[in-house]
Amino acid sequence: MANQFYSKRNLQFLLYEVFDTEQLTKYPYFQDHARETFDMVLDSAEQIAEKYLKPLLTEMDRKEPQLVDGKIKIHEGMFPILKKFGEDGWINAGFSYEEGGQQIPATVLSAAAFIFQAANYSSSVFPFLTSGAANLIRSFGSEELKNTFTPNMYAGLWQGTMALTEPDAGSSLSDITTTAESTENEGVYKIKGQKIYISAGDHDGCENVIHLMLAKIKGGPSGAKGISLFVVPQKRPTQSAIEDNDVITAGVYHKMGYKGAPIAHLMVGSNDNTLGYLVGEPHKGLSYMFQMMNEARIGVGMNATAIGTAAYYASLEYAKERPQGRIISDKDITKPQVQIIRHADVKRMLLFQKAVVEGSLSLLTQCSMYADLASVTEGEERENYHLLLDLLTPIAKSYPSEMCCLTTSAAVQILGGAGYTTDFPVEQFYREARIHPIHEGTTGIHGLDLLGRKIIIKNGKALQLLVAEIMKTIEKANQHEALKPYAATLVKYLGKADSVTKHLLGLASKDLEIFLSDATLYLELFGIMTIAWQWLVQGIKAEEALRNAVGDDADFYQGKTYALRYFYEYELVKIDSLMKRLLSEDNVTVEMEAEWF
Amino acid sequence: MANQFYSKRNLQFLLYEVFDTEQLTKYPYFQDHARETFDMVLDSAEQIAEKYLKPLLTEMDRKEPQLVDGKIKIHEGMFPILKKFGEDGWINAGFSYEEGGQQIPATVLSAAAFIFQAANYSSSVFPFLTSGAANLIRSFGSEELKNTFTPNMYAGLWQGTMALTEPDAGSSLSDITTTAESTENEGVYKIKGQKIYISAGDHDGCENVIHLMLAKIKGGPSGAKGISLFVVPQKRPTQSAIEDNDVITAGVYHKMGYKGAPIAHLMVGSNDNTLGYLVGEPHKGLSYMFQMMNEARIGVGMNATAIGTAAYYASLEYAKERPQGRIISDKDITKPQVQIIRHADVKRMLLFQKAVVEGSLSLLTQCSMYADLASVTEGEERENYHLLLDLLTPIAKSYPSEMCCLTTSAAVQILGGAGYTTDFPVEQFYREARIHPIHEGTTGIHGLDLLGRKIIIKNGKALQLLVAEIMKTIEKANQHEALKPYAATLVKYLGKADSVTKHLLGLASKDLEIFLSDATLYLELFGIMTIAWQWLVQGIKAEEALRNAVGDDADFYQGKTYALRYFYEYELVKIDSLMKRLLSEDNVTVEMEAEWF
Repeated sequence: MANQFYSKRNLQFLLYEVFDTEQLTKYPYFQDHARETFDMVLDSAEQIAEKYLKPLLTEMDRKEPQLVDGKIKIHEGMFPILKKFGEDGWINAGFSYEEGGQQIPATVLSAAAFIFQAANYSSSVFPFLTSGAANLIRSFGSEELKNTFTPNMYAGLWQGTMALTEPDAGSSLSDITTTAESTENEGVYKIKGQKIYISAGDHDGCENVIHLMLAKIKGGPSGAKGISLFVVPQKRPTQSAIEDNDVITAGVYHKMGYKGAPIAHLMVGSNDNTLGYLVGEPHKGLSYMFQMMNEARIGVGMNATAIGTAAYYASLEYAKERPQGRIISDKDITKPQVQIIRHADVKRMLLFQKAVVEGSLSLLTQCSMYADLASVTEGEERENYHLLLDLLTPIAKSYPSEMCCLTTSAAVQILGGAGYTTDFPVEQFYREARIHPIHEGTTGIHGLDLLGRKIIIKNGKALQLLVAEIMKTIEKANQHEALKPYAATLVKYLGKADSVTKHLLGLASKDLEIFLSDATLYLELFGIMTIAWQWLVQGIKAEEALRNAVGDDADFYQGKTYALRYFYEYELVKIDSLMKRLLSEDNVTVEMEAEWF
Repeated sequence: MANQFYSKRNLQFLLYEVFDTEQLTKYPYFQDHARETFDMVLDSAEQIAEKYLKPLLTEMDRKEPQLVDGKIKIHEGMFPILKKFGEDGWINAGFSYEEGGQQIPATVLSAAAFIFQAANYSSSVFPFLTSGAANLIRSFGSEELKNTFTPNMYAGLWQGTMALTEPDAGSSLSDITTTAESTENEGVYKIKGQKIYISAGDHDGCENVIHLMLAKIKGGPSGAKGISLFVVPQKRPTQSAIEDNDVITAGVYHKMGYKGAPIAHLMVGSNDNTLGYLVGEPHKGLSYMFQMMNEARIGVGMNATAIGTAAYYASLEYAKERPQGRIISDKDITKPQVQIIRHADVKRMLLFQKAVVEGSLSLLTQCSMYADLASVTEGEERENYHLLLDLLTPIAKSYPSEMCCLTTSAAVQILGGAGYTTDFPVEQFYREARIHPIHEGTTGIHGLDLLGRKIIIKNGKALQLLVAEIMKTIEKANQHEALKPYAATLVKYLGKADSVTKHLLGLASKDLEIFLSDATLYLELFGIMTIAWQWLVQGIKAEEALRNAVGDDADFYQGKTYALRYFYEYELVKIDSLMKRLLSEDNVTVEMEAEWF
């Protein structure tokens, strides 16, 4: 088992050197904090990760959850972990003091989550879901709902979920058929339907499961406009007791990876005895849920990055230790073999991983900072941060998700035959990474979201804001001789991307189908561009720091400048091919007919 | 479980329309055959695949081989299959009548193997290895060796293997340390060492295992020049009995996929009692082994293509059945959802799979034809076929291996959440595909083979021959109005590839390390070019046939022309980005130091 699973040095670089997280403490909401408290959060995350999460990584994969007598049994090693997350206040750490929280910035908490995820992705899912569900209740629920449900969720005793997907409604959420029928009690509805793929939807490591569930109130509008949000507990608390709420676990999914997390198939109201409590107003469920989904999407990008990071360090460790072959310019067979990290092709595969995972982590940290700043600013400033975050969400979700399937593959490749065996963790990372382009909206859905929605909101204001941010970076980069060529390259590619955007938007009025047919490729192009920007952002700080750095620090900053070079040499150039395709007028995918396959 | 796992129609198209396999029957060695016998071979392969192999696909994945009391126990469903392969003559079907074979062309046999592999990859490995090992003995072994070992191998009673890899010698085969010490009997050696990752290296479905093993005769030259090839049986036949040969199974590997095949760790001569029988001359083992390895490499390309094909049809079936969402130009929520195959992005993912797997199968059929033609021709003609085959081997191995990791990923993506569960076979295909870029030489090794060796052999003659073949195709394509643009595009990209080759060869004299540092990318570029050629080859036949085709046939040929378009629109353009990198003078991977990671 590899020792290192993430880089504390890199987190510190991003939080304190690149993004200046400490600036947040100037705002009243965060004023009690300082770098010291942030570091304490990260240190305790590391301790929990090292002591509880990482030792269970392989175990939880081998001994997956089982449905026994209607209850999902999870790995019992999770029990103390769930307790710990609750006791130490991780679930509501970002919430206000009044809510028992600690007002920790999202930027710091997501860095802590990254540590958990890199140590053991499956185990990190439980508190994350509870936190998101509780956040929905506290944001949009009545005082009664808050008081009834959130305390036990914060304490880690009650599990939270987001219950959206149904057998006939996955990507097409507007087609959900779960119904809600009003009862004589206001805000209380009878719920009936089924939900599938519900993460942490049932397990024996908690006392109750609180589903934040989408359903349609009978008689309401059709489609997305008729969707409402309900709290549907597995057991409903009454004044005197806690009683069964007719949410039956019909099955547990067995999956390729991410096996430690129980994913449930739920039957709701089969015995006509499920009560759901309306959150907020009727028919506004989807917009409420999007708050959680947007957080979750950024979270998925972080999960993918974390798994990619763990795989990177596992393969790096192997590459430094494994002797095999000789360097090409000195093949003398009488000399001992060299460590494979000396081979250019192995270094290429390591740089690929480093450039993708550190680039992604930088983007995700950038997004978290926008979220924090949006939460403490007002007026136009606040709106601008929201717009930037909205625009970047599909990228921050999809780029790491898609790319970490490839980086974990590179990790497997570096280990060769060993990487394909269960003796090393990289094959598990490869399997676990594959969920991310699927859940919280497939990559295809995010492509449509970016091109069909985000690019054009507010007359393209979000895009203008992003371009302005990138231009600011380019300006700073131009103050460093070593970075000028990269700044110039990025300007050139920005221009290319702009011409692609204009071309596609020109199609929108002519043929919607053609306009959006390659939205996934557009998302890919946009993702590469965004990460190239983030590498320039990091490169500026690395160049500045390199002037006085010595020892390990100098090595660290040097690594940053090489990863930047790698990204511009090997990744950014992929835009050329994408652009060629996106500007083409051959609509082969639109015109293809089912019977010709 | 998906019903279709390969396309008989497509195999017929390739064998009889594109490559005219029947021409082989003009040569004396194949003169007893006709399309009818070829079809019989393929039909019986399909029957065996349907009846025996496919039903075990999932089962063999779930119940993987275990080491029990020093013996590897495989899934018992394999027992009748192994018997069947032997009884029906599959193992020596390509060998001469004198050897009990049926003189079937490699092109037809590899098409049959493709059917087995698409049905159940793990199960197809056993006879393939035995056949390859027996082929080595019959090609280079003494009459005594042939008589002693091959009959039971042909009968499927004795398993054959290729035993190369050792703990310290994987990619660097010259570093093997297994030793051979001569005994008083000529040609008989005492063998001592360990071998790892030996496919079918031990199992309870056979009476004996015959390892074709590389070892170094004591006192011989160092490095690759001192490697000899031995038959090392698990049990050695003597005149009176069959006795233990001190080959101990120390372990069985547990793997991410391809779980049905037992991969063994072997201890050889631990009790100083392993005898090995020299094959051919001393110190020539590696060149003999390369015969088997070259076949095996083409075979790996076929395995990857077969898995990719099975995943393609599984996802195609799902896409045709699964309703989800509405077409972009008509989002009316009151209308029923459409099958997802109507979404352009899903068609893109299907066309991607189709273009890669059918393009790969075409290339592999082309390679098999070269092999068959080389086996029945003489002089320069024969040498030319060998050169073409040598040049194309790293491509035919690596392109399908790398790309089918991505096509199986696309299959998973089409199924969405369902694809990630074990309820559908695509997640298994995704796991199984991942072995191919690793075994029989990693992709990195094949990049070095292509750029460092194959491109320059015989002063570049192999490359000239290939370019001539491609130009012949372009000429034919130019006779079809619809294909002219593709022919022109391919000419342009051939020119680009040529400039890249010249640039890289120019570096060879200056700095070997830099010259070969991006050999993997060069291999990728070359692979894309080669498949683009194969799509034009197929496109010509499709265009010709479309003139008179109706019904299903018309659909089939139409599908070919669309896959061609897809490949040129989405895949061939990737060369632009690769080229940009390959022509760059930034040697970031060479200059990167280990401590900067």
